[in-house]
Amino acid sequence: MAYAGVDLGATNVRAVVADDERTVRGQDRRSTPDESGIAVTEAVLDAVRSACAEAGVGPREVRAVGVASIGPLDLAEGAVEKPANLPAIEWIPLTGPLRNLVDGPVYLHNDANAGVIGERFHSERNPDDMAYVTISSGIGAGVCVDGHVLAGWDGNAGEVGHVTVDPDGALTCGCGIDGHWEAYCSGNNIPRYARYLREELDVGTDLPLSDLDAADVFEAAGRDPLADVVIERVARWNALGMATVVHAYAPLVVSVGGAVALNNPELVLDPIRERLDDLVMSNIPEVQLTTLGDDVVVQGALASAMTEGTGDRRLLGSA
Amino acid sequence: MAYAGVDLGATNVRAVVADDERTVRGQDRRSTPDESGIAVTEAVLDAVRSACAEAGVGPREVRAVGVASIGPLDLAEGAVEKPANLPAIEWIPLTGPLRNLVDGPVYLHNDANAGVIGERFHSERNPDDMAYVTISSGIGAGVCVDGHVLAGWDGNAGEVGHVTVDPDGALTCGCGIDGHWEAYCSGNNIPRYARYLREELDVGTDLPLSDLDAADVFEAAGRDPLADVVIERVARWNALGMATVVHAYAPLVVSVGGAVALNNPELVLDPIRERLDDLVMSNIPEVQLTTLGDDVVVQGALASAMTEGTGDRRLLGSA
Repeated sequence: MAYAGVDLGATNVRAVVADDERTVRGQDRRSTPDESGIAVTEAVLDAVRSACAEAGVGPREVRAVGVASIGPLDLAEGAVEKPANLPAIEWIPLTGPLRNLVDGPVYLHNDANAGVIGERFHSERNPDDMAYVTISSGIGAGVCVDGHVLAGWDGNAGEVGHVTVDPDGALTCGCGIDGHWEAYCSGNNIPRYARYLREELDVGTDLPLSDLDAADVFEAAGRDPLADVVIERVARWNALGMATVVHAYAPLVVSVGGAVALNNPELVLDPIRERLDDLVMSNIPEVQLTTLGDDVVVQGALASAMTEGTGDRRLLGSA
Repeated sequence: MAYAGVDLGATNVRAVVADDERTVRGQDRRSTPDESGIAVTEAVLDAVRSACAEAGVGPREVRAVGVASIGPLDLAEGAVEKPANLPAIEWIPLTGPLRNLVDGPVYLHNDANAGVIGERFHSERNPDDMAYVTISSGIGAGVCVDGHVLAGWDGNAGEVGHVTVDPDGALTCGCGIDGHWEAYCSGNNIPRYARYLREELDVGTDLPLSDLDAADVFEAAGRDPLADVVIERVARWNALGMATVVHAYAPLVVSVGGAVALNNPELVLDPIRERLDDLVMSNIPEVQLTTLGDDVVVQGALASAMTEGTGDRRLLGSA
């Protein structure tokens, strides 16, 4: 028997198939089609079939599938509705077609929730209270409280990237609202914030402002005055956002992933850790970089399949 | 058979006993002793005994007890540890002694969590995704996500009163940290905020600034310039705090209670409703005043006893 995990991103579809012993035996990665929802569904099914073939199992031998997907999700229908990052696509059916392919349940999660499931599954401690925060093109959280991974009726629990950190609202978020955490600190928005601060503070810089990405800013740390100002301000908003995560969910551990954090752990995580004490009234969690790197989401999807959607290793084998 | 609910507050202990049909048959209210934890435990037990006597049942006929308490709670030990509002007291044992008194389980919650349990139980819709926000001497939330009432390993999930709304941190919260929602908008802090704004903005007022309480401010609405400024600023922070509740938990309904909200629904709730659209990127919940008034906490404790600690009416009778 086997289990499958799928990570449906805006750029790539990944699938992994593992055996009963949790060893990955087959995997597949392919580009995400951008022309139609049905093409995306087909790519997901083909990726699972291909990973099964590499693992030497038939799809009907797969006991359960975990799917981590870009949003927004329609959890009731098991589909993605008008994905923000695939603008030509209206609707991507996921759980129905997968259920026809395999012989078992299909668990659908947004990618941040898959992250916390993966972290929980692979943690030494298997904590019932933890959060996974991704600082990537956007910012979001997957949260487990009392052993329960929060979904929300509309799949929108954990949208902490849209918490207002700056009530003066200097920058507008991609969602159209001013002052949200993500508007300052996500990979997509750090370049915009750098241009704003350059205007506002008139600080010197050699950064290529018209064609800037977040990596340029972090690479210039310690040698470009504007880069240092941006990194300092981003650290401040990140700490405020993280304090909200702590007050809202009381996690024992916060695991951080996403490209911005993974590529710059000292510049992103250390300042959060240093500031939490001054912002949080309750217990301060351990804040750590995910040990699963880029694989945290697909590993979370696989862990979901093996643990009835929870990441709780104590359920292994009860599926 | 019967069920009991207890509300342990800093001022009063209340107990209610209901029959199988959910009708309250006996109740008791007495002052909360402030000299020792054992005296508080005894008062809780006596209140339950007295409510049982009024209901004509013996304590051994009580099938389950729900307890809502001031914090901080030690959920593992079933006790209150160093309650902030009863400074002479170190430790109040609750679940152990109650379990010896009655013939069934004892469910312990902080008071905000009992609030959401009560709201859920008494709601027409019994929603799985809702929050209860209390704006009282402090600010806090009890939250139900996916049908699960969030506690947190340390009982601190839902400490949204300590979310930073003002990163400039003009006011310091009772917890010692600057800029928290509660520092501006709780009943204890509105008078302090009024004095701060009077200094800061030099706006005219007839309010008795040296001996002010929150009720004075709301009563002067529309006829005192400072009162109007305070109410306007409080509304702004309340809306920001509520937007964080929405982004963190994705509730379908937010029920608001606590004296500040219950006594001034138009001045407190209407501005929150009006502003949420401009602050929230996801679905906007219904924001409503609790229909249970001051009874929401003790009713939540009773509902917890009847529904295995959840407030989910679908569990009635399965206990």
